[in-house]
Amino acid sequence: MSEGLFPGIQGAADCAGWADEAWVLMERLFPVCRSITGDGVRETLAAVGERLPLQMHEVPSGLPVFDWVVPQEWNVREAWIKDPAGNKVVDLSQHTLHLMSYSTPVHAHMTLAELRPHLHSLPDHPEWIPYRTSYYREAWGFCLPHRQLESLPDGTYEVFIDSTLTPGHLTYAECVVAGRSEQEFLVFTHVCHPGLCNDNLTGIAVATALAAELMRGAPPRLTYRFVFAPGTIGSITWLARNESRLGQVRNGLVIGLLGDRGPLTYKRSRREDAGIDRLAEYLLPRIAPGSRLIPFSPYGYDERQLCSPGFNLPVGRLTRTPNNEYPQYHSSADNFDLIDRQALAESMAACAALLRAADREACYVNLNPKCEPMLGKRGLYRPTGGGHPGAFEHALLWVLNQSDGQRSLLQIAQRAELPFDTVADAAQALERVGLLQLRED
Amino acid sequence: MSEGLFPGIQGAADCAGWADEAWVLMERLFPVCRSITGDGVRETLAAVGERLPLQMHEVPSGLPVFDWVVPQEWNVREAWIKDPAGNKVVDLSQHTLHLMSYSTPVHAHMTLAELRPHLHSLPDHPEWIPYRTSYYREAWGFCLPHRQLESLPDGTYEVFIDSTLTPGHLTYAECVVAGRSEQEFLVFTHVCHPGLCNDNLTGIAVATALAAELMRGAPPRLTYRFVFAPGTIGSITWLARNESRLGQVRNGLVIGLLGDRGPLTYKRSRREDAGIDRLAEYLLPRIAPGSRLIPFSPYGYDERQLCSPGFNLPVGRLTRTPNNEYPQYHSSADNFDLIDRQALAESMAACAALLRAADREACYVNLNPKCEPMLGKRGLYRPTGGGHPGAFEHALLWVLNQSDGQRSLLQIAQRAELPFDTVADAAQALERVGLLQLRED
Amino acid sequence: MSEGLFPGIQGAADCAGWADEAWVLMERLFPVCRSITGDGVRETLAAVGERLPLQMHEVPSGLPVFDWVVPQEWNVREAWIKDPAGNKVVDLSQHTLHLMSYSTPVHAHMTLAELRPHLHSLPDHPEWIPYRTSYYREAWGFCLPHRQLESLPDGTYEVFIDSTLTPGHLTYAECVVAGRSEQEFLVFTHVCHPGLCNDNLTGIAVATALAAELMRGAPPRLTYRFVFAPGTIGSITWLARNESRLGQVRNGLVIGLLGDRGPLTYKRSRREDAGIDRLAEYLLPRIAPGSRLIPFSPYGYDERQLCSPGFNLPVGRLTRTPNNEYPQYHSSADNFDLIDRQALAESMAACAALLRAADREACYVNLNPKCEPMLGKRGLYRPTGGGHPGAFEHALLWVLNQSDGQRSLLQIAQRAELPFDTVADAAQALERVGLLQLRED
Repeated sequence: MSEGLFPGIQGAADCAGWADEAWVLMERLFPVCRSITGDGVRETLAAVGERLPLQMHEVPSGLPVFDWVVPQEWNVREAWIKDPAGNKVVDLSQHTLHLMSYSTPVHAHMTLAELRPHLHSLPDHPEWIPYRTSYYREAWGFCLPHRQLESLPDGTYEVFIDSTLTPGHLTYAECVVAGRSEQEFLVFTHVCHPGLCNDNLTGIAVATALAAELMRGAPPRLTYRFVFAPGTIGSITWLARNESRLGQVRNGLVIGLLGDRGPLTYKRSRREDAGIDRLAEYLLPRIAPGSRLIPFSPYGYDERQLCSPGFNLPVGRLTRTPNNEYPQYHSSADNFDLIDRQALAESMAACAALLRAADREACYVNLNPKCEPMLGKRGLYRPTGGGHPGAFEHALLWVLNQSDGQRSLLQIAQRAELPFDTVADAAQALERVGLLQLRED
Repeated sequence: MSEGLFPGIQGAADCAGWADEAWVLMERLFPVCRSITGDGVRETLAAVGERLPLQMHEVPSGLPVFDWVVPQEWNVREAWIKDPAGNKVVDLSQHTLHLMSYSTPVHAHMTLAELRPHLHSLPDHPEWIPYRTSYYREAWGFCLPHRQLESLPDGTYEVFIDSTLTPGHLTYAECVVAGRSEQEFLVFTHVCHPGLCNDNLTGIAVATALAAELMRGAPPRLTYRFVFAPGTIGSITWLARNESRLGQVRNGLVIGLLGDRGPLTYKRSRREDAGIDRLAEYLLPRIAPGSRLIPFSPYGYDERQLCSPGFNLPVGRLTRTPNNEYPQYHSSADNFDLIDRQALAESMAACAALLRAADREACYVNLNPKCEPMLGKRGLYRPTGGGHPGAFEHALLWVLNQSDGQRSLLQIAQRAELPFDTVADAAQALERVGLLQLRED
Repeated sequence: MSEGLFPGIQGAADCAGWADEAWVLMERLFPVCRSITGDGVRETLAAVGERLPLQMHEVPSGLPVFDWVVPQEWNVREAWIKDPAGNKVVDLSQHTLHLMSYSTPVHAHMTLAELRPHLHSLPDHPEWIPYRTSYYREAWGFCLPHRQLESLPDGTYEVFIDSTLTPGHLTYAECVVAGRSEQEFLVFTHVCHPGLCNDNLTGIAVATALAAELMRGAPPRLTYRFVFAPGTIGSITWLARNESRLGQVRNGLVIGLLGDRGPLTYKRSRREDAGIDRLAEYLLPRIAPGSRLIPFSPYGYDERQLCSPGFNLPVGRLTRTPNNEYPQYHSSADNFDLIDRQALAESMAACAALLRAADREACYVNLNPKCEPMLGKRGLYRPTGGGHPGAFEHALLWVLNQSDGQRSLLQIAQRAELPFDTVADAAQALERVGLLQLRED
């Protein structure tokens, strides 16, 4: 067994226990009414905080963050529609998707015709409740199954939303696992979606599991920063408050949508060939057969901000089926039925493998570049000549030959067609005898 | 309908009227005895000048132009061969190809054996008259069908060529359609071939149609310069006289051979990936199915000079079947039977599409590169979140994400797999709200 | 016939005579007991020296060469094992592979159990004697067929090795064929293997033939340096003693294993696209159908040192079946039965073609880069226009168009899809009339 992080994790089977714990956390978080601000986010982060040491951040409404402004804080206590007979036909307490997020307060009686523009449904999926928001335009609305919408009788309806939209804070949290280097691996997951299971809860649960496991092991080389923040405005706020230290981010992953039965999908960073892209390209087929890589696009989650051209961070995204590519996306059908424990475990194993490899991956400099060094006198070569070398000896020769400070161990492994860990082990052996030096940059 | 040049032209069908007008011009020009200098060129340009405002240029014989010298002016009034019975068996007035271009004057009686070295024919195509020239070696000759050559009886022939080869001028013309920018799109066509229809007349007619239509529309962004000049020595002369302003040529096309039934063929510039090459690569399959792209080669028409290594202009070439690749090439069989009106119209539509796209194609700079700008407050984003964006919203995100001043709209369209015009429209919208700026260079 | 080296050599058939001479040399050298130092090397080089003028180099033991030290000189006069009945069952005089190279002196009686750790065999090939060495750990050993080893009776054996391991010299030789330029083509072959025919003797014989033929012909453009040296420590020593002039090495080949029936195999230099790599890529399919190119790897022969990252010389390797990829490799089965005269001749023809092309290959600068020069007035273009140019005229246009000092004749030939020699002939013609200049660098 080679050295490194997550030593026992070779595949999905090794992560079954993590997936079970994640399931418990997800069940706990599902009913919480989350949005981009408010007590729902705080309650969510508190649950994560029971499992991890978290730094909490509260950013005041009104603060300019690049082209945006931190919005007012939104909280809601009660929201329903009563039909002409006085029955509650739509009720936030039944499902957090029933209320359009950031709905302004209202208490009024109105005809169905007046109510109708405030009702959202999915005609193509008449049993599902859609997910709708109106963060930046003051409005109110309810979401309901199209079948139900169609059957509403004419008459006067009572509408009640007991919400507040007031100066307050945007909340996010960080968990930092310090390594020997200040260079960081960033894991970013959004925490703003209510009653959706794959889209949001799986990301929170996987990030929590990875951070918890990392804290239990030996200190890594890189520093690992897990950010739990609302989507878009959360990453924009995080970037605005961390701009001066973004140079330390050497690798990163936006994670989410990690529990459905689709194949694991890595979306490249805007750079297309950043270190994390090359690691994913190499590792995913090995750890998650059937997985796929897709090119960068500016539509998606917080990679939209992290990979905006002014930052262009080396951050990829890991999901299973991407946003907007499965019918249940952003609807009440994104529930626990959509999630597969085996798929969730495989996603965790893939994340662990990426973090493990990222921690070993580096460029080295051969300190004895003129001719091969004499390996025999350092105990690294078989004493009798004429026979056949093994994989480790080949890896020694490859690392020495290619380590000009420009080519990383992964590039060497790929070119040599040797396992990455064998090459990393060879580099470690050569470093120990003083023939190789990590290139700091 | 998007903005831009030639708004109504989407394919060959939209150019049927242009093709009909072109046919009239070609019939008018066919009998003119053209060469690289002389009154035939002047008469040709005068006919074009009835349709376009032309700047005429007369360059004196003897002027050094790079490694060459502007030759003496050649004119001919009469040229024939009488057989031993006194019948005119070859006569310039019957076909302009009968006389080798630049033939020196002669009046002599001679045997068939003496005459024979001056007679050119095509044994493989015994019914056709070949096209021959002797611009730079003083000589005379006649061209005739091989079948006729073989049947000439022995005896004494009378040969008469009433030509002059004297100090005079080389003539060429330009039509400039001024745009908002000094950057130029160059369209170059040669005007020196006599009695050949595809090779020369189609190029003249297409250039005339494009320039005329451009002058009728709204002012373009780029400046369009159409040059009508003799082949080789004409482009060499034009380059010598315009050397200081060649930096303004940002795109260009050498056109000719645009009426035969072969597939439309774009020959790349020497740079292979100049802007015009990428535009052709993208547009031609869309506007002319079955068209093809071929690599640059130094054999062809005036791209030989425009793309010589000392200039290396971003100029491609558009023909249907390239020179020397159809049997009728440079023979009397290159006549109106070879031309198809539909093919000619398709060539025109392709040229129009290239000019249209070149006029929109540019690199932009995102003025708000840190995180996405808030599009909603500028009226560019749907107010309710959670649903699916359309192609135009995707185009906005792509243009913002990729516009670092290095990637052009076409490159963005190709990467985003969005139509070029949708991306160009998005750029225009973003430029209007001050989020994007054209990169001047 | 084009100009250049080895004018008569177009393929294997033209090298049959060279192969016959090589065979004689190989038979002469086979029984010599070679190692990395000692009189066996000297005797080998003396035989080569009867055919070529050689510069001999003797480098003293103990001299540091990079991370290594020139070892003590090893010589052996007699070595055998007597079985309990007093019969010589293993005897150096029967086969030079019977003794592990660099075995220390010994004279002792011992049981089979004590002797056993000193005996090497190949269980998978029980009839073959393996090749073993112990250059850098003091030890002794014998090699024998596994079948024989298995049948040795118990009892007391007498072991005798009359060897010396004392301060002396490492010997290597060079043959230099001076050209008009100081730029060098390096041919490197190792001379340290005893009783192995393909691995070592074919390399020596091919290098000898090439050098001898080169000396007979007209002086080449490049200087050709043939180095005959022991493997690994020989190339390390040569590099240490020639470090200051390595910049002159513009192309090179490590050769060996050139007689077996496998396909000719070119292994790229570490640069992967050095001039020699591109020449091999172009030429080998033409001269040796079925040949193949393989990527660089740091396992092999002296390219390990020549292509170490501190030197990174533009040196490829030519073998037939590579080391370690045929069963007879490094065993007594690598004998004359393994060698095919036709294969050996093909290897020679390929080497000759590479040297010939390397001598012509260069980058030129078009001295008249603005427009085409007028070729007609220099006698390089047909006087009558309108017809079709031939391959040589096309080559003239290509060379002029592409010769910007960056693109070599080979690159031009490949792009133009013209034969390399036609392009090289065109360049020569253009150079003669002053239109082209060799780019010195």
